[in-house]
Amino acid sequence: MNQLYGGLEAGGTKFVCLVSAGPDEVVDEIRIPTTLPDETIARVIAFFEPHRRQGRLAAIGVGSFGPVDLDCASPTFGTITTTPKPGWSQVDLRGRLERALGLPVAFDTDVNAAALGERCWTPGNQALDPFVYVTVGTGIGAGVLANDRPLHGLVHTEVGHGLIPHDWRRDPFPGLCPFHGDCWEGLASGPAMAARWGQPPESLPAEHPGWALEAHYISLAVVNLICAYSPRRIVLGGGVAQHPGLHAAVQARVQKLLNGYIHSPLILEHMDEYLVPPSLGKRSGVLGAIALAMNVIPQ
Amino acid sequence: MNQLYGGLEAGGTKFVCLVSAGPDEVVDEIRIPTTLPDETIARVIAFFEPHRRQGRLAAIGVGSFGPVDLDCASPTFGTITTTPKPGWSQVDLRGRLERALGLPVAFDTDVNAAALGERCWTPGNQALDPFVYVTVGTGIGAGVLANDRPLHGLVHTEVGHGLIPHDWRRDPFPGLCPFHGDCWEGLASGPAMAARWGQPPESLPAEHPGWALEAHYISLAVVNLICAYSPRRIVLGGGVAQHPGLHAAVQARVQKLLNGYIHSPLILEHMDEYLVPPSLGKRSGVLGAIALAMNVIPQ
Repeated sequence: MNQLYGGLEAGGTKFVCLVSAGPDEVVDEIRIPTTLPDETIARVIAFFEPHRRQGRLAAIGVGSFGPVDLDCASPTFGTITTTPKPGWSQVDLRGRLERALGLPVAFDTDVNAAALGERCWTPGNQALDPFVYVTVGTGIGAGVLANDRPLHGLVHTEVGHGLIPHDWRRDPFPGLCPFHGDCWEGLASGPAMAARWGQPPESLPAEHPGWALEAHYISLAVVNLICAYSPRRIVLGGGVAQHPGLHAAVQARVQKLLNGYIHSPLILEHMDEYLVPPSLGKRSGVLGAIALAMNVIPQ
Repeated sequence: MNQLYGGLEAGGTKFVCLVSAGPDEVVDEIRIPTTLPDETIARVIAFFEPHRRQGRLAAIGVGSFGPVDLDCASPTFGTITTTPKPGWSQVDLRGRLERALGLPVAFDTDVNAAALGERCWTPGNQALDPFVYVTVGTGIGAGVLANDRPLHGLVHTEVGHGLIPHDWRRDPFPGLCPFHGDCWEGLASGPAMAARWGQPPESLPAEHPGWALEAHYISLAVVNLICAYSPRRIVLGGGVAQHPGLHAAVQARVQKLLNGYIHSPLILEHMDEYLVPPSLGKRSGVLGAIALAMNVIPQ
């Protein structure tokens, strides 16, 4: 019987848990609504506990919403730090799972986990370094693998709060970020689109000018990701970004904005292979948490 | 007698060569104007050759202007690729040195070498990861160490060509980048300042509004570097950035722009320890090339 691993994608609205040996071998799965920490974490533990008792679980991997403390030398390693989400500030998510289950718990951001999942479980991606997973949905963020490990440092990447040119002429909307107004997330997240147009993005018709503006802002930020990381592939995930036609619009616009400066056939001729949708659909994060768990065990 | 290493910082206007065992033990040094490749490279070889003949040189490190091919699996690894600099396109700088001197030659960008130099030779910097060296001068670029190695991938970082908000109200100057107009380099390099104000930055008086605008643009881009890499320290080098008062202005403005979002005492309280001038002055690049050379030899 194969060794199994536990994966948890801890999100602001739901926690997704898997027991699995990889993407094609999922033994058990649950979705738990994110309520208060005690209740939600107890349900996570109750889900993993029977598998642990059977002795088949080697480790748990967690990809968490943030901000989180990823410094393994810090006394608050594995803690969700200053989230506005009621009750979740300073919650030691990693420690509570580790103590309750008695298993090693690997911990990273949700987006770093998603990047790991997409690289680890997608044929053709394994050797690509740097590798970037971007999500454009309720929030905006990116996971980055660089020199074969997730990138973190002082805290972790926060590319959603990076600054891009705001097209005031076309777009008088001031931006929605409580910290930065018109940072990328403030201009282009799902809630920003909803506030600008008075309706949620999923109800905007295909020909609505909001989609061209959205493609423009995502493209400006993708140019910055390319200039920052020189990634070998970018996965563009998240609910807003899966709108039909958006990927193609971003591919074309990024090419135009870069204007031939980056001399790579991938960018000049094969943008459809360079900027791609998630191959794991909505499971990038939780399957990446499985990959995190596998890494925590010395092979 | 100590083992010695050769370092070359290959720049667009001059090539700086060192023979050294580290920052405090420089045995020989030369500055060669960058003319045509045959002439310049011949002078580099002539400088290193007597040291090689004495058997004391273990390896050469090169930090080069670019764009360069850093893919060691590529047939053009170590080549300067598509530079507009006359005669230097497709010059196999690494290969020509290796063949002429019969020594291993480590090769990276000038800014990655400078980042290595600043981290390797500055007490207190060695464990800082990620680590970023930014230069704002004739050009704008950054070297990044992440997970203990220089960051490169499809090509290498090109943060100077990243896009930042252009303050059209204060600044109708359209930008100087031949590819992107008002990218960071197009707005804030030395030549951009000279074109905007009709005089070179070194002749602008301290109270000229150009300096506040320059601090603003550098700050926007530094915010993006922090959001992208979450570095543990940023060294701000380059001629333009050493203008008196500019570092302090950028520190204050970055803090204001981040607006408390990144919860780190370094950013909230100790920006003067976080965003710092180069400790090696103008020698960051060439001493980083020495560090590159030391890494190429199995220790």
